[in-house]
Amino acid sequence: MPVHLQIEATRGSARAGKLITPHGEVETPVFMPVGTLASVKGVSQDVLEELDVQILLGNTYHLYLRPSVDTIRQIGGLHRFMSWDRAILTDSGGFQVFSLNDLRKVSEEGVAFRSHLDGSPHFLSPEKAMEAQIGLGADIIMAFDECTEYPADAQRVRASMELTLRWAERCKSYFEEHKHEVPWAHTESAELRSAGRTRASAPMRTRATPAVEATQALFGIVQGGMDPELRRESAVRTIDIGFPGYAIGGLSVGEPRELTRDIVESTLEHLPCNQPRYLMGVGTPEEIAQYAQLGVDMMDCVLPTRAARHGLLFTSEGKVSIKQARYAQDDSALDAGCDCRVCQRYSRAYLRHLYAANELLAQVLNTVHNLHYYLATMRTVRAWIRAGHLPASGVARM
Amino acid sequence: MPVHLQIEATRGSARAGKLITPHGEVETPVFMPVGTLASVKGVSQDVLEELDVQILLGNTYHLYLRPSVDTIRQIGGLHRFMSWDRAILTDSGGFQVFSLNDLRKVSEEGVAFRSHLDGSPHFLSPEKAMEAQIGLGADIIMAFDECTEYPADAQRVRASMELTLRWAERCKSYFEEHKHEVPWAHTESAELRSAGRTRASAPMRTRATPAVEATQALFGIVQGGMDPELRRESAVRTIDIGFPGYAIGGLSVGEPRELTRDIVESTLEHLPCNQPRYLMGVGTPEEIAQYAQLGVDMMDCVLPTRAARHGLLFTSEGKVSIKQARYAQDDSALDAGCDCRVCQRYSRAYLRHLYAANELLAQVLNTVHNLHYYLATMRTVRAWIRAGHLPASGVARM
Repeated sequence: MPVHLQIEATRGSARAGKLITPHGEVETPVFMPVGTLASVKGVSQDVLEELDVQILLGNTYHLYLRPSVDTIRQIGGLHRFMSWDRAILTDSGGFQVFSLNDLRKVSEEGVAFRSHLDGSPHFLSPEKAMEAQIGLGADIIMAFDECTEYPADAQRVRASMELTLRWAERCKSYFEEHKHEVPWAHTESAELRSAGRTRASAPMRTRATPAVEATQALFGIVQGGMDPELRRESAVRTIDIGFPGYAIGGLSVGEPRELTRDIVESTLEHLPCNQPRYLMGVGTPEEIAQYAQLGVDMMDCVLPTRAARHGLLFTSEGKVSIKQARYAQDDSALDAGCDCRVCQRYSRAYLRHLYAANELLAQVLNTVHNLHYYLATMRTVRAWIRAGHLPASGVARM
Repeated sequence: MPVHLQIEATRGSARAGKLITPHGEVETPVFMPVGTLASVKGVSQDVLEELDVQILLGNTYHLYLRPSVDTIRQIGGLHRFMSWDRAILTDSGGFQVFSLNDLRKVSEEGVAFRSHLDGSPHFLSPEKAMEAQIGLGADIIMAFDECTEYPADAQRVRASMELTLRWAERCKSYFEEHKHEVPWAHTESAELRSAGRTRASAPMRTRATPAVEATQALFGIVQGGMDPELRRESAVRTIDIGFPGYAIGGLSVGEPRELTRDIVESTLEHLPCNQPRYLMGVGTPEEIAQYAQLGVDMMDCVLPTRAARHGLLFTSEGKVSIKQARYAQDDSALDAGCDCRVCQRYSRAYLRHLYAANELLAQVLNTVHNLHYYLATMRTVRAWIRAGHLPASGVARM
């Protein structure tokens, strides 16, 4: 197995352990910060390391458009391109094709769409999404699926689910045939090294080239809309195709939160216990803690980073909208219970000023704090699973 | 003396030493990064410390408008507000009043102007500029001067110089009467501490409160346009008023570079040898090295930070416009001779991508590199003065 989950403790449905990847181990359950364009907006990679980020998410759609898969592949893959030697997961591009393109055209073959940047025409299919993700070289890549819209009628949900299943088979076929083309596969990496293309930062970058011939892991995605029976069928048939890990897609698309939770809970029952389970695109700090308790191992969401850029900060006392004038003279830390570098050093008054004055540093510091809050929340959950009790901590209550 | 220069080595006209301030020592000659709104755009204070920035410049005009002097004063001054316990210098606000306001109205009393943000009416005078700068509490503050425009006829230059001299006297009078009102003066700081207004970061912040009752230092500014004789007269009469340090203002306002250099050189002859000499608003890496060789101790300029935000990077091989497509596949470091954290870790291809994709991190990383380059240039100059030879280094050739 190129990527596998080592479960080390359980508590109810929840499990804590390690996801073993070609670029290091990831403690699970894990929240994966989103680095859309090979960067978590405003945060340098050394700060991500300091935050103890062990896995990042990259968006294939965005990277495919800028700087292009070819650019990244020729440089040796996303790890080397962005100088990040820990694990990376890429999505398939499908979600952005559907959410950023009103004029997309879906066929059995794939999806025709226009770039949201310049209107240029593009086409993604299961094969092309695999080719792109192999070129980017993340440790975990995702099957190209159709994210079913909400609401949708029963016929539409089934048709969409069936399409996703057929695409999953095509993804697997293409991947199995081409997985050794990953840019950091043993042979090509050696070639890169001998070509002298390492920078002064060689010590930083050696781990970006796994020692043994490793490959990526392709995860399948369960769809089925808001129908538990279709979700079950999608899970069973996706497992029949066979993947080293499974994601639950098509949620957080506008449905009520209770429905999300019900579908997650019922879908999890049908996923293998010993393989990683990834819930895509959620959620608030409370939600990620809840889903981890239900047995989800991996989650990602733009919420902490996007909210930060809008001045919305997560704290142990609830959400703080730092732009408010009430903080203008507030010399206290943003979150007295937080040990992040922002709360340790800066006051609410300073953060409020930076935001009000539209200073770049506002976005940087707000993002660092929110990411810390999310990661600390997951650390608390992991400790809770392992130790059987909730440690005192200023993170989201479960 | 609240601030004084300890000269430890000379070489020709150049001198190397230490500027002793209430917030630490500053190795001179020094380049001071500009932190306009209590932030060096995009760079957090811990990174500035890592870059070995020992003194920052803040802009009184901008801070007066946002977040206001009152806000900063009530929190304990700029050091505490921005959590920066090393030295700070503020300008008087005069330069921005003149450069950002077409509708300003200058009188003997001061300058009426409108905010560039919302058009609201404001008035700055020598006394108000002192009041503002005492409230901000920088270690070094500047007299409120009129920055003579270029070109200007002889009569205009003299009238402007005379106004600056009269204003300098008023600045000194007000400052001497009110200098003990600085927010970190001994008594008020003690009060702040006992009120429990320190954050968890107390260890970071203790140095922000000098142990002994220290005051700020007010520097005078020499004007006199491009006329060496008027410059001499301005210097002599400003020294007659008496300040612990002197700045050369009114340069880099559009005149040819050779003229700037001539005026700097002739003006320096008239400034006291044993006091700090500050050349305002210059320059390129080559220029700051040259001026330091002429005997300038302090300089500031927005060039490294502003150029960085426009993708213009200073390297040992010359300027690099990182937006160019030629760097899209360039896996080498920006500057092979540079030991900054950016060059150690990231490639030109990555920096080019970040800039082209308008990623926040582009501005952060570019700024860190350019600041490092400027600071390394000054380290080289200091070493050259002290050791009598130029160490091998990838910084601007002198």
